[in-house]
This record gives sequence, structure tokens and C-alpha cells, in this order.
Amino acid sequence: MNSLNDLIVQYNSCCSQLNFPEEPHNLYSAIRYFLEGGGKRIRPVLCLLGNELFGDIHQDSFHAGNAIELFHNCSLVHDDIMDHSPLRRGKQTIHVKYNVPTAILTGDVLLVNAFQHISNVQEQYKQQIHALFSATILQICEGQQMDVDFEKMDLDQISFPDYLKMIILKTSVLLAASIKIGAIIGGADLQQQAYLYDFGKNLGIAFQIQDDYLDAFGEPSVTGKQPGGDILENKKTALLIKAWERSTSVQKKELLNAMSKNKGERVAAVLEIYKGCKVDEWATGKISQYTATAFNCLDMVDVPFKRKENLLALTNKLLVRQS
Amino acid sequence: MNSLNDLIVQYNSCCSQLNFPEEPHNLYSAIRYFLEGGGKRIRPVLCLLGNELFGDIHQDSFHAGNAIELFHNCSLVHDDIMDHSPLRRGKQTIHVKYNVPTAILTGDVLLVNAFQHISNVQEQYKQQIHALFSATILQICEGQQMDVDFEKMDLDQISFPDYLKMIILKTSVLLAASIKIGAIIGGADLQQQAYLYDFGKNLGIAFQIQDDYLDAFGEPSVTGKQPGGDILENKKTALLIKAWERSTSVQKKELLNAMSKNKGERVAAVLEIYKGCKVDEWATGKISQYTATAFNCLDMVDVPFKRKENLLALTNKLLVRQS
Repeated sequence: MNSLNDLIVQYNSCCSQLNFPEEPHNLYSAIRYFLEGGGKRIRPVLCLLGNELFGDIHQDSFHAGNAIELFHNCSLVHDDIMDHSPLRRGKQTIHVKYNVPTAILTGDVLLVNAFQHISNVQEQYKQQIHALFSATILQICEGQQMDVDFEKMDLDQISFPDYLKMIILKTSVLLAASIKIGAIIGGADLQQQAYLYDFGKNLGIAFQIQDDYLDAFGEPSVTGKQPGGDILENKKTALLIKAWERSTSVQKKELLNAMSKNKGERVAAVLEIYKGCKVDEWATGKISQYTATAFNCLDMVDVPFKRKENLLALTNKLLVRQS
Repeated sequence: MNSLNDLIVQYNSCCSQLNFPEEPHNLYSAIRYFLEGGGKRIRPVLCLLGNELFGDIHQDSFHAGNAIELFHNCSLVHDDIMDHSPLRRGKQTIHVKYNVPTAILTGDVLLVNAFQHISNVQEQYKQQIHALFSATILQICEGQQMDVDFEKMDLDQISFPDYLKMIILKTSVLLAASIKIGAIIGGADLQQQAYLYDFGKNLGIAFQIQDDYLDAFGEPSVTGKQPGGDILENKKTALLIKAWERSTSVQKKELLNAMSKNKGERVAAVLEIYKGCKVDEWATGKISQYTATAFNCLDMVDVPFKRKENLLALTNKLLVRQS
């Protein structure tokens, strides 16, 4: 077995060997620029880990890992256009550095490249992996559409279950599919595949709620950024949706008032309301709940504990403890 | 054998059975709206015709035809965003009727759906068709990037061979791949596949130059629209690129002057220059040349002439004679 770090190094080496044509220069230099921007490669590494639970890593996990990573980058490039994001991983986004047409085409090319890598998988598993991969991308598009829709809706129209559905589609299913694809390649049976899918899905939910939580309550010394980015954008996070749900009509007016303050005062005002209705405690409770469910799913996977250690190490890396 | 009209009816019936989920409503209603907007279904019908040259139509040609048509619609939706086009087939484009994020996601979903239809093709031909389909989409993205780049370049920087390369990538390769995929499914050998690919490619070039020609010199009673749309947008068509290439520096100044006239006078002024340097004759010559090459390729295909009649009928429908 490899160590987690070995696997990350191995995947990064695989990813750095991806080749693209030179021309048209604007298109392929944009793609290289974006892929060289890095990223944590969590999803392809999850695929390798899913494989390694059941046996030695097969070359197919690198093919599938490339497909997953390329699609993930496609979705980031397209999402950045939709969200008007100026920066990604500390560098200019493609639609800003190049232009919107090149960013749309960059995403399209990455998506097609992803399917090319899936087609390199051995026949035995190709059909199942192709079907899962395609269905997962469609779910992610649906989740992104829900996110786009949410931004135009009133808080009264969005419940926490709606939010949960959105983040499952937008974030969790790709983590779940990544590990399941690895498990398929490793030769796991359907029951083990299902446990691992649910592990990834619950891990994804915990991770996303934690993301919302840390953006509001994270320690800058740990997260490396000032808290309140989501609040400044009045983003409909789990915290905002839950705070709204818990508020009386008088408190709802206070919350709207806090959200409309100038940017210098907004974060402190909204955080005070969040603390007042204890959505911080609620969020840490939810993170613990979904993390526990994820670990229960992993417990059910019928392989020696030793084989699960890397997956547990990655999970602990993802779910940064704040206390 | 079916008549050409039978095949169009059969494909339209197949296409109308495509099913999409209900939710998220904004995403899937946009997709239905766009697909119901019609289109001539030339590419999937070319696929059926490619199949029928060599034998009875196999269900796989409908799977591949769906993939081709869905991808083609993806490229239209994404191109419309890039070109800021308000209308398509007489109806509002997706990014105008909905918004840019929904239009990007619509294209992404159509692209993934396309790959799902390719995965329905029988094992025997799936790998070859998947590879051809993927490579073709990448070429189309490259052609679209070239087109985007051209719009920002000076006329001095673009030669007719550059333009030719762009339209081959952007337009011709999909026509060529459509008929080749049908031929593969029909059981054609590699040589026959290559002849048909070249037939489609040259047909595509003739078709695109004709498109540029008709936009400037078409009879409104035949084309159904007023000439000069490209001229009003100062679009870098084959005519403009060739007129520029043929002009002395004095004539280049006159051309730039004509192109900067107000919209009421621009079309007449540019057309006069086009006629002066005879790019109209040059264009009809080029259309004839590429059409002849296409027909030569079709001649080489080793099947009874009777089997080629539908393809000839479609070709004649596409290449509208103006005289």
C-alpha cells in the first residue's frame, strides 16, 4: 500500500503529463494556465483510494482520475463565469484573464477530454463507469442551476432541505462518484460500492456545511482568510438559510437590515444575529452528524481496517477541526 | 430504401422522443425550448444516409444521430452566448430568454447527453465512433476559438487559407464525421469511410462559402432575408478576406471607409467594392470547386449509384442554386 502522500504525488505526476495541442494558442494556453493553477486533486485521489481499498491500484484509476479532475476543472471554469468570480486559487479566472468565449470553450474542451479519458478504461468496467460519470455530471449541472436560481429567490422560498439537495448535487455526488469509480476498478461488489458512495456523499455534505461555517466563524490563522466573504456577498449559505428559518418576523427584519449595512459593518452585524440564534452551534452539530454518518458507511465496508487508513487520513485533512 | 423525406420524418420522430427531467425547471425548460425550436436536422440525417449507403439503417444510427444533434445544439447555445446573438431560428436565444448561466448549463447538459447516446452504440463500433465524435468536438471548439480570435484581428493578419482552416474546423468536420459515423455503422471499410469523410468536408466548405456569398449576393426571394447581415456586422467572411487580399493600399482604404459608413449606406458601398474586385465571381468559383471535389469523393464510394441518390438530393437541397 502507498501512503496518502505517495498517492497525491503519483496523481500529480500523472496529471502533469496531460498533453494539449499548441494551437489555437489562446484556447490551449488558457487550459494549461488553469490546470497548472493546481488545486488539491481531492477527487482523483479519492478515486485512487477507492481502488486501493480492494486491491493494487490499476492504471484505469489514473484514467478515471484524469477524467474526474478534468471535468472538475471544467465546472470551475464555467461556474466562475456564472458567479462573476475574478479570482480562483489566487490567480485571475479564465474569463477575466482571457475572455468569456475562451472560458466557455475551455470548459467544453475539458469536458470532452474527460470523456476521452473514460474511454481508456478497460471494457469490463467502462460502461458502468461511463454511465455513473455522465449521470454525475448531469446532477452537478442541476445543482449549479439550483444555486443560480437560489440567488434570485427570497429567503422565504428556500428551506434547509432545498439547500441540502442543492449541495448534494453540486458538491457531494462528485466526491461520492470519485470513490465509487475507484471501488469499481478495484473490483468491489455492488454493496461495497453503495457504502462508499454514501460515505462520499455524507462527507461532501459535512465538507460543504463546514465551508459555510468556516467562512463565517473560521480562525483566520487556520483558514488563511478573513471571515465573512459569504456574508459580504449575502450568499445563501446553510447559516443564512437556517438563521432565517429560526427567526421571528421581527428578527427577520433585523437580519435583512444587517445584510443591507455597508460592507464595513455588515459582517459583524450578521455574525451577531447568527450567534444570537445559535446557527453556529447548529452548523457544528450538522457537520458532526454528517461526518458520523460518513464514518458509519465506511465502517460497513468489508475490508481490513488497515486499508481504510489513507481514506481516514484524507477525511481528517478535509474536515479541519477548529477546536 | 427510404426516401430522403422518410428519413427526415423518421429522425424527427426519434428526436421528439428525447426525454428530459422536469427539475430544475429553468434548466430543462430551456433545453426543451431550444430543441423544440427545430432546425433542419441535416447532421443526423447525414448519419442515416451514410448508414444507408451500405445497408439497412441500424438503430445505432439513431443513437449516433441523437448524439450529433444534441452536441450540435450545445454548440449553437454556447456560440450564441459568445456572439451575443439575440435570435436563433426566429426565437430568442437561451442566454437572452433565460440568462447566461442557464445557457452555459444547457450546453453542458446537451454535451453530456450526447455522450450518453454514443454509449448506446453496439460494442463493435463504439470505441471508433466515440473517438471520432470526441476528436470532432475538440476540432469544433478549436474552430470556434479561431473565429473568436479572428474578430479581434486586423484583416492584414488573416489569409484565405486561415479562413479555410477555421471553417473546416468550425463547420465541415461535423458534417464529415456525421456521414462517416453512419458509414461505420453500415459496415463500410476504411477506404469508403475516408471518401465519405472527404465528401462531407468539401461539402461543408462549399456550404459555408455559399452561406457567406448568399448573405451578400443572395436573392431575397430565394434566401428569405435581406442581404448584407454580415456586412452590417463587419464580419470577417470569405468575401471580405478575399476582397482585402485583392486590394491595393488605396483600395484597402476605400474598403475600410465603406465598412465604417453608417448602417444605411454600408451594405451598398461594400457590395460595390466586392463587385469591383470580383469576389462574387471568385466565391461562386470556389463553391463550384469544392462542390466538384465533394462529388468526386462520392463517385469513388463503391456502392450502386441508386444508393447515392438520397445523399445527392440532400446535397442539392443544401447547395441552393441561385441561377
